[in-house]
Amino acid sequence: MALVNEHFLKLQKNYLFADIAKKVNAFKATHPEANVISLGIGDVTQPLAPAVIQAMHKAVDDMATKEHFHGYGPEQGYLWLREAIVKNDYLARGIHLAPSEVFVNDGAKSDTGNIGELVRWDNSMAVSDPIYPVYIDSNVMNGRAGVFENGKWSNVTYLPCNESNQFIPQIPDHRVDMIYLCYPNNPTGTVISKDELRKWVNYAIKNDSIIFYDAAYEAYIRDSEIPHSIYEIRGAKKVAIEFHSFSKTAGFTGVRCGYTVIPKELTAATMDGKRVELAPFWDRRQCTKFNGTSYISQRAAEAIYTPEGKEQIKQTIAYYMENARIMREGLTELRLTVYGGENAPYLWVKTPENTPSWKFFEQMLYGAQVVCTPGVGFGLAGEGFIRLTSFGDRNDCIEAMRRIKEWLKA
Amino acid sequence: MALVNEHFLKLQKNYLFADIAKKVNAFKATHPEANVISLGIGDVTQPLAPAVIQAMHKAVDDMATKEHFHGYGPEQGYLWLREAIVKNDYLARGIHLAPSEVFVNDGAKSDTGNIGELVRWDNSMAVSDPIYPVYIDSNVMNGRAGVFENGKWSNVTYLPCNESNQFIPQIPDHRVDMIYLCYPNNPTGTVISKDELRKWVNYAIKNDSIIFYDAAYEAYIRDSEIPHSIYEIRGAKKVAIEFHSFSKTAGFTGVRCGYTVIPKELTAATMDGKRVELAPFWDRRQCTKFNGTSYISQRAAEAIYTPEGKEQIKQTIAYYMENARIMREGLTELRLTVYGGENAPYLWVKTPENTPSWKFFEQMLYGAQVVCTPGVGFGLAGEGFIRLTSFGDRNDCIEAMRRIKEWLKA
Repeated sequence: MALVNEHFLKLQKNYLFADIAKKVNAFKATHPEANVISLGIGDVTQPLAPAVIQAMHKAVDDMATKEHFHGYGPEQGYLWLREAIVKNDYLARGIHLAPSEVFVNDGAKSDTGNIGELVRWDNSMAVSDPIYPVYIDSNVMNGRAGVFENGKWSNVTYLPCNESNQFIPQIPDHRVDMIYLCYPNNPTGTVISKDELRKWVNYAIKNDSIIFYDAAYEAYIRDSEIPHSIYEIRGAKKVAIEFHSFSKTAGFTGVRCGYTVIPKELTAATMDGKRVELAPFWDRRQCTKFNGTSYISQRAAEAIYTPEGKEQIKQTIAYYMENARIMREGLTELRLTVYGGENAPYLWVKTPENTPSWKFFEQMLYGAQVVCTPGVGFGLAGEGFIRLTSFGDRNDCIEAMRRIKEWLKA
Repeated sequence: MALVNEHFLKLQKNYLFADIAKKVNAFKATHPEANVISLGIGDVTQPLAPAVIQAMHKAVDDMATKEHFHGYGPEQGYLWLREAIVKNDYLARGIHLAPSEVFVNDGAKSDTGNIGELVRWDNSMAVSDPIYPVYIDSNVMNGRAGVFENGKWSNVTYLPCNESNQFIPQIPDHRVDMIYLCYPNNPTGTVISKDELRKWVNYAIKNDSIIFYDAAYEAYIRDSEIPHSIYEIRGAKKVAIEFHSFSKTAGFTGVRCGYTVIPKELTAATMDGKRVELAPFWDRRQCTKFNGTSYISQRAAEAIYTPEGKEQIKQTIAYYMENARIMREGLTELRLTVYGGENAPYLWVKTPENTPSWKFFEQMLYGAQVVCTPGVGFGLAGEGFIRLTSFGDRNDCIEAMRRIKEWLKA
């Protein structure tokens, strides 16, 4: 008889956003007059840049004529897009990559989820805590995470990120094969300096580990000292795969386009000690299980690298970061301890008097009609924090701060 | 040290289309004046339907306003599209499905490639021969196919499809856990009757197997007796997962949208004999490793279910099928044995005098300047055949037939 992959049965139910919705709905049912503002959502709200809209209309028109029709594109993405990425996101920062090292995808979630296919199922892994759940769940599905005991996966090394280490995980005292890092970080909104990132690259070189570096929020970095790419660190090409997304950079959450970089230098070992390049593995994986991203989405992505496109997406990012500033200042004035929100669209707010995350969530919902995301939903190290996002509308943001102020003063 | 997934090293290099391109380029270099016509390509050439173009322009405009902007959609696809699929592709044929049994994707290749994640890596499998390479290669990557010996994978049961069985594979004399079937078939262009398909469903029920049924070409079926969906067979919902694509139905190879059906009734076993539904597994898989298909692509797909959309895609399909008729008649007149091309966009042509596929390919290239795909490229059972596709332009098709006639008569 056909047997199921029983690793799926080990997956913990992730009720975070469902639980939030349930509690918000319960509140709304008993307070039908209330105007609830959500600062919990991780999705963008502002329209796409005009240059992107224009490029997509043109791409749609291409599809209406025999001469300009585009059928199957390269599984790795169109060369014009890969060249624009290499030139603008890397060469402009002194990083030399070939277009063949860039793999265009339909968003970072697919690739961060699928990338584990390239390495043995029993490689050991480390993740920061709190964490974006995909990094762990995708590894539970292939058996790599082990079994779930006392709130943790047996084969996963958790790297707590908290106030005491300024949200920079400590280098483990043992070796691990795979390390997931995300900076600017979701959910804490914190960033990593070149010096701290260098420690990780050196650790990976010394231990022959692979770093899976999620740079989905790099466009929100304002501080010129903070690295946008792990390849700004010498030697990183040997040990790191980097994930980028246009979702937050250009509001593409509904358009679906991103990319993954696997440098030629990146290798891993076979059981008998041979070195093998991983880029050709990924190329083969994509050619077998993926058929490229929509032509229209790729033309949309190309448009954000035009002078107008760049300027327009910069404005939208500035809009969100102004939201972040308003929230940061408002909450700091209220004597709350706030992390993030300066080089990232997320604010990681310490609850007053060590209130548990979920309790504070309810208090704020009932007291100010503002929805946040309880930090503990991202892992045990998130307890006592909430996450706020700056992706909302300006007026909502201002009104939410006014209400929180009124509520906390009462 | 990080260890690679060594199953990737077992993958056979697939040089089929690269080898074709190389030979065609060599010919062109020595015959610069020649006007080579390709009847080998599996990609569509005609523009998208006007209703689809209109829907995509509207969807792009939605993304330009705050009110109609669409960010992350449901990982499973928008309900309006899932409802249109259920109503038009199933209910119209007397098949009752809930929208929750339909999972919208970015094309059938992703899902046929990823679906194997749901079952144990050591389940046994059977495939028809010749075959679309993804079914095997995706299983090589997770170790299920075994090792490659004498042109075959050790853990794969090959089901030859040839003239003697009218391209309908024989039910195996042993049990297998997973069976890949594709009808209308790529590459042979043949179809399966309800009676023959029923044998497979009954085999799967008896042996507790799962059928992966690829119906990507169902829109090309003309004969009212031929099933469009495996769910036309009683009991199939218990044992079959069905893959659909808009790529050939509506020319979406560059738009990227399709869907997979996993009925609620479909279950597989755990090691201790419990039954587990697979639809929730797939739901969890998609929510973890996929973020939905482009909003614009989903609106495009929705448009093909409107009265105008239906009529327009029917016209394009009729255009391709008229190409198929022209080729079929032309080749039959030349006393070639031709299969397919009546309910499918592919023609499977027997080479004269048992000429090997690659030899005939070269002869036709040099003799008529027409490119085909050598049948042996799809598997050993394809030797002595070539595949022609009807996705080209009408004039090319007519001209190719004229040249082949002249060449074969000479």
